[in-house]
Amino acid sequence: MDKRFGSQSVVFHHPPRIVSFASVVGPKEGEGPLGRFFDEVMQDDMCGEKSFEKAERTMYRYTVEMALKKANINEDAIDMLLGGDLLNQIITASFAARDLRIPFIGLYGACSTMAESLIVGSMMVDGGFAKRVVAATSSHFSAAERQYRAPLELGNQRSPTAQRTVTGAGAVVLSSGQGRGCRVTCGTLGRVIDFGIKDATNMGAAMAPAVADTIATHLMDFGRRPEDYDAIITGDLGKVGRQLLLELLYEKGFRIEKQLFDCGCEIFSENQDVDAGGSGCGCSASVLCGYLLKQMDVRFQRVLFVACGALLSVTSSQQGESIPAIAHAVVLEA
Amino acid sequence: MDKRFGSQSVVFHHPPRIVSFASVVGPKEGEGPLGRFFDEVMQDDMCGEKSFEKAERTMYRYTVEMALKKANINEDAIDMLLGGDLLNQIITASFAARDLRIPFIGLYGACSTMAESLIVGSMMVDGGFAKRVVAATSSHFSAAERQYRAPLELGNQRSPTAQRTVTGAGAVVLSSGQGRGCRVTCGTLGRVIDFGIKDATNMGAAMAPAVADTIATHLMDFGRRPEDYDAIITGDLGKVGRQLLLELLYEKGFRIEKQLFDCGCEIFSENQDVDAGGSGCGCSASVLCGYLLKQMDVRFQRVLFVACGALLSVTSSQQGESIPAIAHAVVLEA
Repeated sequence: MDKRFGSQSVVFHHPPRIVSFASVVGPKEGEGPLGRFFDEVMQDDMCGEKSFEKAERTMYRYTVEMALKKANINEDAIDMLLGGDLLNQIITASFAARDLRIPFIGLYGACSTMAESLIVGSMMVDGGFAKRVVAATSSHFSAAERQYRAPLELGNQRSPTAQRTVTGAGAVVLSSGQGRGCRVTCGTLGRVIDFGIKDATNMGAAMAPAVADTIATHLMDFGRRPEDYDAIITGDLGKVGRQLLLELLYEKGFRIEKQLFDCGCEIFSENQDVDAGGSGCGCSASVLCGYLLKQMDVRFQRVLFVACGALLSVTSSQQGESIPAIAHAVVLEA
Repeated sequence: MDKRFGSQSVVFHHPPRIVSFASVVGPKEGEGPLGRFFDEVMQDDMCGEKSFEKAERTMYRYTVEMALKKANINEDAIDMLLGGDLLNQIITASFAARDLRIPFIGLYGACSTMAESLIVGSMMVDGGFAKRVVAATSSHFSAAERQYRAPLELGNQRSPTAQRTVTGAGAVVLSSGQGRGCRVTCGTLGRVIDFGIKDATNMGAAMAPAVADTIATHLMDFGRRPEDYDAIITGDLGKVGRQLLLELLYEKGFRIEKQLFDCGCEIFSENQDVDAGGSGCGCSASVLCGYLLKQMDVRFQRVLFVACGALLSVTSSQQGESIPAIAHAVVLEA
């Protein structure tokens, strides 16, 4: 049966169910407006480990284990772990997969990785290749900062367009079969879009065109309007990217002001000194698993979750390249 | 219909066909024993670009374009591009995907990425989510060397256990439906395995346990023996890892001396001064697309292709971590 839909979309005839989810964040995220929704707020961002990178890995593994525990299943019941993170060679997810001993599919889509994991995982479950999969991603402010930008000790001044990498992780257990839980009903794969932005402290501007492209393609593929969704949730555009997205979609004939909820704008408050907002794989993952999935069947019946990633590296920036970006989307229904 | 098989395997009821494939390698690989089989040997490893990283990207894109051209189709006919590479944030595949404008799923499995792309891509096609996908990976000696080890200008002496990253790329076009072309009939997903090896100049030793685990699991999942395959093709174990694999599988009750063909051992000859052999995503990809797929229906009827990757990063090694590894496997039938 053909599950291809429109130009870039797929539809699930046996929609995978989200049977469990978990979120863990760092202390600053815990102090933000969504703080009380997360399953766990770490007391410090070291997780009892000796380095930020080891701390991120422990947080990732702990989040997956918590999602499994909530579903009352163990690792053996999971056919595949899909995910990634922002660290070079996705060592967070890879090393966590070693400890979890679940067959592993490593993905990299920068901050789009949670949506990428959900859409690929849903294809695995709907396609009959897996009964249960876990999609999980994370990011860690201090680990990302010293890898992508500069050591924290340098105390660099930040640009007002900069976003703060969220310390957080989210994990979703997708399952085949009937039962309770909201469902992943369809999705749209993103293309890599590049509007020529070269300022690595302005990711929102680099990512907005990719998000606009994926949302517009999604709506056209399915012949839907923004009003068909209770919320259109974007991963990590921040204040600058959010405004650009509204303008880019307006030019394409879509108005999404009423539906738009950007995880990067919502996870921190104005007085937390985070410039343009939050970012990182862990931002959309923790907001999805901490706040949004808990609102399904309460505030929301049908939402479009669009996570976007800036596909730069330190080397590509140093070689004068612009910043390409990608956004993948999945539809969640109560 | 359940396509899950055994503990870690999947089976394709409508096996995707390999309708086209292409390979491009660097000059040293062109001088090796398989040199005449590759579609194109670059005259120098700069590809007319100003950096090694840009050269790798051009090689990747060119290889995908060549595979499409051979199949007489263009980018619009491809539903998804799946792949990755060894550079931080997989900038080779991401930037190439920007130029190719095909919906992109970025994968990272180090040198296992070609098998990972083939198994995930096959699930997409067999599952009905795509009519045609491209699976493509690459690596570049000079780009990898300065990212993972040291600048070439330093002229470091190499360890006898070290493997040389292959400059090369391979691309496969997978298609649904009936017709000519060899088929991907089933596959086995790998788990992350770590035997505690910490020597980053001995990847073969780090990867052999993961390959042994995946091959043994595959044979047990399907109730097959090594003799059921005309060849068991491993990606990039090199001389040291090849010997360890034979010993590890012998302990598990399997003898694969007669079937074993290691891409890392075969791509260079003894007199090319490459220590333990070749490695890198581009090694198994270029040998698969340059040599092996051309032997299907000639020398081989059924082969097991197992690509393996060492999931370390510079940071993980600096923090004293051991080297976890993963191997994914697909079965190709003429």
